[in-house]
Amino acid sequence: MRILITGAAGFLGSHLCERLLSEGHSVIGMDNFITGNPNNLAHLSNNERFSFIRHDVSNFIFVPGKVDAVMHFASPASPNPNSPYGYVNLPIQTMKAGALGTHNSLGVARANNARFLLASTSEIYGDPLEHPQTEAYWGHVNPIGPRSVYDEAKRFAEALTMAYHRFHGIDTRIVRIFNTYGPRMQVDDGRVVPNFIKQALHGEPLTVYGDGSQTRSFCYVDDLIEGIVRLLYSDVHDPVNIGNPVETTILEFAETINRLVGNPAGITYQPAQRGEGDPQRRQPDISRARSLLGWEPRVPLEDGIRRTIPYFKEALGL
Amino acid sequence: MRILITGAAGFLGSHLCERLLSEGHSVIGMDNFITGNPNNLAHLSNNERFSFIRHDVSNFIFVPGKVDAVMHFASPASPNPNSPYGYVNLPIQTMKAGALGTHNSLGVARANNARFLLASTSEIYGDPLEHPQTEAYWGHVNPIGPRSVYDEAKRFAEALTMAYHRFHGIDTRIVRIFNTYGPRMQVDDGRVVPNFIKQALHGEPLTVYGDGSQTRSFCYVDDLIEGIVRLLYSDVHDPVNIGNPVETTILEFAETINRLVGNPAGITYQPAQRGEGDPQRRQPDISRARSLLGWEPRVPLEDGIRRTIPYFKEALGL
Repeated sequence: MRILITGAAGFLGSHLCERLLSEGHSVIGMDNFITGNPNNLAHLSNNERFSFIRHDVSNFIFVPGKVDAVMHFASPASPNPNSPYGYVNLPIQTMKAGALGTHNSLGVARANNARFLLASTSEIYGDPLEHPQTEAYWGHVNPIGPRSVYDEAKRFAEALTMAYHRFHGIDTRIVRIFNTYGPRMQVDDGRVVPNFIKQALHGEPLTVYGDGSQTRSFCYVDDLIEGIVRLLYSDVHDPVNIGNPVETTILEFAETINRLVGNPAGITYQPAQRGEGDPQRRQPDISRARSLLGWEPRVPLEDGIRRTIPYFKEALGL
Repeated sequence: MRILITGAAGFLGSHLCERLLSEGHSVIGMDNFITGNPNNLAHLSNNERFSFIRHDVSNFIFVPGKVDAVMHFASPASPNPNSPYGYVNLPIQTMKAGALGTHNSLGVARANNARFLLASTSEIYGDPLEHPQTEAYWGHVNPIGPRSVYDEAKRFAEALTMAYHRFHGIDTRIVRIFNTYGPRMQVDDGRVVPNFIKQALHGEPLTVYGDGSQTRSFCYVDDLIEGIVRLLYSDVHDPVNIGNPVETTILEFAETINRLVGNPAGITYQPAQRGEGDPQRRQPDISRARSLLGWEPRVPLEDGIRRTIPYFKEALGL
């Protein structure tokens, strides 16, 4: 297939390009580098099946030649308000990527009679009142909260995707992506994985907010990409959760990283910080992915962290 | 003020034009007549302070001259799947009016340093789990349900409006409009008010689905417009519910209409029909409008129905 991937220079987009090229597909990457990093694609530049278009998906998308699949991954995605890449700091761009970008990407799919895959997110569940979250859960989102620029943009993108499917017969798919980590994640995006690994590599104590008993479910990027590719090859039009349902406390997570890095500095505790609408807990129910895609995560957290550390060492020049 | 009103040829838009002209403002009406009706504006065509631009708000909006306020009312708004005007039958147009239309309208406000008012809706509460609904309620909406084309578009529009307010400092307002009735509502939009009045005027029994104990809260259009105009003149940036909190059962409603029209044919009962995501009950908490705008509805249902019947008689050629 000849596949257009928007947000190709992002963490997930770049892994997706790599994976689909390795399966023999041709890939057209698209990015405007607002949050994507050209370095993430540098190793693909000599691949003759890879091409790149620098473009903002909020504007009409023109791709020369036939396209067989469109995968819309372009969007700021970090919830961290202290990160320059945080969607709270890029509110209009985030909403445009979700609404205008999805509209334009669906337009490419429609013009080419191509299949379409939307990168949605567990954030459409907001601060969920049900655990774990199945795809049937409608979510709990404040439409005018500071995080709504991302949550509502993605909910809109899902609704628009389903409308194109129902009304225009477009062959669509929707993946709801849960927390993911691995090489090429933004070093300074302010989330817990990069923060901990950075602190550990610098020999500093890891900063835990609250008592560390709050949990997260982290999926290693290779597992996530495997699930997305299976969804792309499937005929499943309803949204599918892809993520790791294994819950880990922040404390276990910090201790694992310190052990794997060999950081003797331990842990330091700070008062809990919880912004409005921050989810206290989010965990995917992956029954649908298991039954319809035969997918489940394979990489245990410890292995995933081990594979991620070298990337951070290099990125930090250590 | 010189005020741009999108969706000017719609039920609410046309009343708004009339009201603001009567207060001495200049009004630029905009509509593409997908669901709006040119007849709704015919009586304004000789007013020298009224002008009209036929335009689809999904495309870039250009308005010559200075604009002091933008009121974005353009959208299909009927939930009825059997109506040609139902948003379920105009899914892409509805989503474009909500996302691209709001973006373009906000662009006019920003370029002119004008105030902005978004027509949002009680539908952002979805099938609510709290009664009555305060503005603090986050809602209960299925992002991929058939009604999501409207609900998610309006939630997105609210989020985008707040993002422009917070990030670009635009002087925005958001009104959440509950069920409204009155002259110029679409005769064939399939909702209960036009259905009942039409049946009554034709001397047919009124069709009640279920036992008629389900309730609705109906606001007369003049009351609604009064609330919106007060909001426009206010400094309130958070969403404000405008609607009538008085709940009426469908049965009471049918009996009132039969009595006022003088229809002896009575009522006929049909099995309840409830589509996925149809709200069983929706009722505004208007504390915020009362305290911040000094507004509450004044027209009792019976008076409102009395004022609405002549319009239906004329529209039906009776």
